[in-house]
Amino acid sequence: MIKVVLLGAGNVAFHLAKAFLRSDQIQIIQVFNRSEDAFSFFPNSLSTTTSLSKILDADCYIISISDDSINEFSATLPFSNKLVVHTSGSVAMNQLHSKNRRGVFYPLQTFSKNTEVNFAEIPVFVEAETKTDLQLLQKMGRSISKKCFEINSEQREKLHLAAVFVCNFVNHLYHIGYELATENDIPFELLMPLIKETARKLDDGIPSTMQTGPAKRNDKKTMAKQLEILHLQEHKEIYSLLSNAIANHYGRKKL
Amino acid sequence: MIKVVLLGAGNVAFHLAKAFLRSDQIQIIQVFNRSEDAFSFFPNSLSTTTSLSKILDADCYIISISDDSINEFSATLPFSNKLVVHTSGSVAMNQLHSKNRRGVFYPLQTFSKNTEVNFAEIPVFVEAETKTDLQLLQKMGRSISKKCFEINSEQREKLHLAAVFVCNFVNHLYHIGYELATENDIPFELLMPLIKETARKLDDGIPSTMQTGPAKRNDKKTMAKQLEILHLQEHKEIYSLLSNAIANHYGRKKL
Repeated sequence: MIKVVLLGAGNVAFHLAKAFLRSDQIQIIQVFNRSEDAFSFFPNSLSTTTSLSKILDADCYIISISDDSINEFSATLPFSNKLVVHTSGSVAMNQLHSKNRRGVFYPLQTFSKNTEVNFAEIPVFVEAETKTDLQLLQKMGRSISKKCFEINSEQREKLHLAAVFVCNFVNHLYHIGYELATENDIPFELLMPLIKETARKLDDGIPSTMQTGPAKRNDKKTMAKQLEILHLQEHKEIYSLLSNAIANHYGRKKL
Repeated sequence: MIKVVLLGAGNVAFHLAKAFLRSDQIQIIQVFNRSEDAFSFFPNSLSTTTSLSKILDADCYIISISDDSINEFSATLPFSNKLVVHTSGSVAMNQLHSKNRRGVFYPLQTFSKNTEVNFAEIPVFVEAETKTDLQLLQKMGRSISKKCFEINSEQREKLHLAAVFVCNFVNHLYHIGYELATENDIPFELLMPLIKETARKLDDGIPSTMQTGPAKRNDKKTMAKQLEILHLQEHKEIYSLLSNAIANHYGRKKL
């Protein structure tokens, strides 16, 4: 069994813990977090600590905290020459403090506490400084997912950026759609078949071949009217920028 | 059987035709289009014409053409006092010429010729000037979909605008994600589990409760670095605008 300590208790740590608990090759021996609060989401059976000095001896330490804090936090760890990895898409491996052996264990998915995910389908991207450590991370990745790939920090950075566009920004557009629908007494769920089909269609072809809508069709009257209907300046700006981007891509004129 | 003539032979007409052909209550007696080319996608069994003067007598005429052309085209129809509807989300019913009885038959979905859709799950929104015509459109809607609703032009306009955000704009973000991934030798299909889960999560809660990512977490270092990585000015602008919109919504500071 690979002994693992989770450092951090946010959404990623929570879903990793659930996946590791189902694996017969990984044992979570401890969860560390600065505050007790987050532990309430984790199974009672897991050992927890809020004290850095009480962290147990493990084969792999997995840091799942805010990207901005990884560098500093890794320097505060009171041990050395251990395998310490982070789970961030955008932080380079060498941002971890060099007193430990460094690596990355990046599951490409959007995690919320109250949603179930099927980890078997989530690609896990790993990186390490040595072949032995890489093999350990690959073993861990393959014990929870069908898809585990080695990828360097530069590629991972690009992959994460792509993920920001197709997930985080997309979700904000869902949010705007939600606001527009509900403020007009239209149940948001009526948009769900459209939302799911827009994602599903990508199984049939690349996004640019699937584009539809007023900007693609160059329906100028519709675009002018829709811009007028929007009452928030921010929504107008997003509408113009994305419509123009679509129009540019398909060789239409600007709004 | 309700006798229908399709006016236009684009993506919407194509998918409507497929759904009507499966219905035991609707008979497509003709498809009109200005040019012959588009007919090649339709079943050979359907009668077609490119001449307005040869349009047959029907219970309902369905205009599926570019939004901008609906008004003008409806005025050129060489008959009157017939039920003429369009399938557009954003065009008001009264944009149809008043020499005919007017209505709307709007299926809320994104249609591409080379993708199959399950019409039974697609909400159809209908509107008419008289109760009798409304009932006919509802009968047509219910014969191809489990969800048929009456909605007025103003609400439909808002619904369509929401659809532009959650479908058309979302697909363009998929396209940007595709470009970022493939230009870095990362297969786009590795992003598919993330894309589908981002859509699926909305079954569990409204979009704002599902937001994740650097802008939501206020990871400023990550955002600054990602802005720097993007090499197209258009991508930078989209990144900044959407990150700021997310930050604003969750009470963070601007980039």
